Amino acid sequence: MSTVRAYAASKANGDLESFEYELGPIGPEEVDIAVESCGICHSDLSMLEDAWSITRFPFIPGHEVSGKISKIGGHVSHLSVGDNVGLGWHAGYCMTCDQCLGGHHNLCSSAESTIIGRHGGFADTIRAHSASVAKLPDKLNPRIAGPLLCGGMAVFNPLVQFGISPTDHVGIIGIGGLGHMALKFARAWGCHVTAFTSEGAKEREALDFGAHDTINSRNPEAIKGATDRFDLLLSTVNVQLDWNSYIGLLKPRGRLHMLGAVTTPLGLNLIPMMFGQLSVSSSPVGSPATIRKMLEFATRHDVTPVTEHFPMDKVNDAMEHLRSGKARYRIVLDRQLL
Amino acid sequence: MSTVRAYAASKANGDLESFEYELGPIGPEEVDIAVESCGICHSDLSMLEDAWSITRFPFIPGHEVSGKISKIGGHVSHLSVGDNVGLGWHAGYCMTCDQCLGGHHNLCSSAESTIIGRHGGFADTIRAHSASVAKLPDKLNPRIAGPLLCGGMAVFNPLVQFGISPTDHVGIIGIGGLGHMALKFARAWGCHVTAFTSEGAKEREALDFGAHDTINSRNPEAIKGATDRFDLLLSTVNVQLDWNSYIGLLKPRGRLHMLGAVTTPLGLNLIPMMFGQLSVSSSPVGSPATIRKMLEFATRHDVTPVTEHFPMDKVNDAMEHLRSGKARYRIVLDRQLL
Repeated sequence: MSTVRAYAASKANGDLESFEYELGPIGPEEVDIAVESCGICHSDLSMLEDAWSITRFPFIPGHEVSGKISKIGGHVSHLSVGDNVGLGWHAGYCMTCDQCLGGHHNLCSSAESTIIGRHGGFADTIRAHSASVAKLPDKLNPRIAGPLLCGGMAVFNPLVQFGISPTDHVGIIGIGGLGHMALKFARAWGCHVTAFTSEGAKEREALDFGAHDTINSRNPEAIKGATDRFDLLLSTVNVQLDWNSYIGLLKPRGRLHMLGAVTTPLGLNLIPMMFGQLSVSSSPVGSPATIRKMLEFATRHDVTPVTEHFPMDKVNDAMEHLRSGKARYRIVLDRQLL
Repeated sequence: MSTVRAYAASKANGDLESFEYELGPIGPEEVDIAVESCGICHSDLSMLEDAWSITRFPFIPGHEVSGKISKIGGHVSHLSVGDNVGLGWHAGYCMTCDQCLGGHHNLCSSAESTIIGRHGGFADTIRAHSASVAKLPDKLNPRIAGPLLCGGMAVFNPLVQFGISPTDHVGIIGIGGLGHMALKFARAWGCHVTAFTSEGAKEREALDFGAHDTINSRNPEAIKGATDRFDLLLSTVNVQLDWNSYIGLLKPRGRLHMLGAVTTPLGLNLIPMMFGQLSVSSSPVGSPATIRKMLEFATRHDVTPVTEHFPMDKVNDAMEHLRSGKARYRIVLDRQLL
């Protein structure tokens, strides 16, 4: 038995307070990670607010973990104690369903979400199924690796899943935690990259992140001017926009892929989709094999999140900073290592 | 100059009456087809009703043409006078845009629709760009080839475009003019095929067309029982259904592809699409290269429409039969050949 020191909320929107729990005996396929840092994703906030009515309290957020393996189960052979590793949205898979056996573990209907019904990474230790834990490349700075594991994975995965070509034109809607990494990944992928942002101050930064150009998403005329320009539009926005306007910007056979958790119905017009053979889709993070590809690609192309760091014991300040909408662009909690 | 004898409506919902017009000199890339038969598609009726507010009168319907080349332009080398040919939704393409040069002529923004702003195939002759005219395989009965060119093409194209595998499970929603051909194509493609129909009498026929099983689309419990079963759902229905229920039947990475011209917005729930990496899409008929593939495949696998034949001079009776919803399954007008 070992005691985990963590930060938990006892109720919806409650402060995160010191909380301890015991880890039972480690399973043969499991590993324990000594957490060194943990990114904060908007879904940590949604879960803290119980916005999806699925949060179990006490609730420990955190699913963008970077740390070192501290213990391994008896059947784990691909990871060793001391390895630098990362853990993202998923902490386990059934390993035997059609999706898992097909390499699509992130679509396993029994996949465990790191912070749903289990304890997350705002803690000194987190346990997970070893298949969900990714070894970090030696050249990747572990302190900023966490945000790649969820936010970075979410935006990288569509490039792989839909066979995006370096000749394609990609638009990123919403330049925040996910969007800024999407700009970097799409640029490194070789694509022409356009940033859609409503905030003038972000336009310059978007270009620095890799956008070739920017479009003011509050200017309907500017949007209309980009008709027939994009093979892929990636939206990272979790509120309703005028999706039909964006669909109008797609080239034939183009795709609007939505990564923000929009919870009210999309009112899509079919006829333009028919004329252009267009698709609208979504996806959740990525599989373990794609996580490995992403980490290798990110390291080779120096795709890193822009981070703001808080010590983990200032977690409530960090959450407030996220709530304020001022995070630029991803907040990371660092544990005060002894 | 030559005179075309056709059937035209002079106003929305008007009767189709004898109408003549002159063909000018033939262009170098054009061919004239002596029409032998012409299928009737639901879009002929929508255009006759001016349901899309784009109909130009006098209006000559007809875009599922089967006939013989009667004249060719000076630059046409792949077709000869006397060839059995078919013509579908498109009667011409720009031939030089990215889509045309990429083999996706059906997505050319300047593609000419056979019955939009030009005279259709309820006539003794129709002229078209030679690239839009397909030579019929020798073994294909020309009298029933027409409906393959539009309706058949519409349902065959997604199998090609989205790389549908013979191991996939395909559901066809709506068993009518398009749906019955979709059942036959998907069965010949090697897939497991399910027919969704609201009409009990069609269930037996759907099995005869190739469905392995049927689901009563008026029975929400039956629909729910098919959760996680389909890689592809093809809807041929042009009214609103509970699309979110159908999306719930898709396997991870599945697709709902909508071929019926639903003209009011689709209220799609994004979150289930996110968890399953699902797509919703649409498409218009197919390219000339895909039309050739379809005709060869249909002939090899004996995929033919089930047709009801009217002499072309009974065209108003035929349209009324379509309006009544009783067509089983595709109406074809035959010209009284001298």
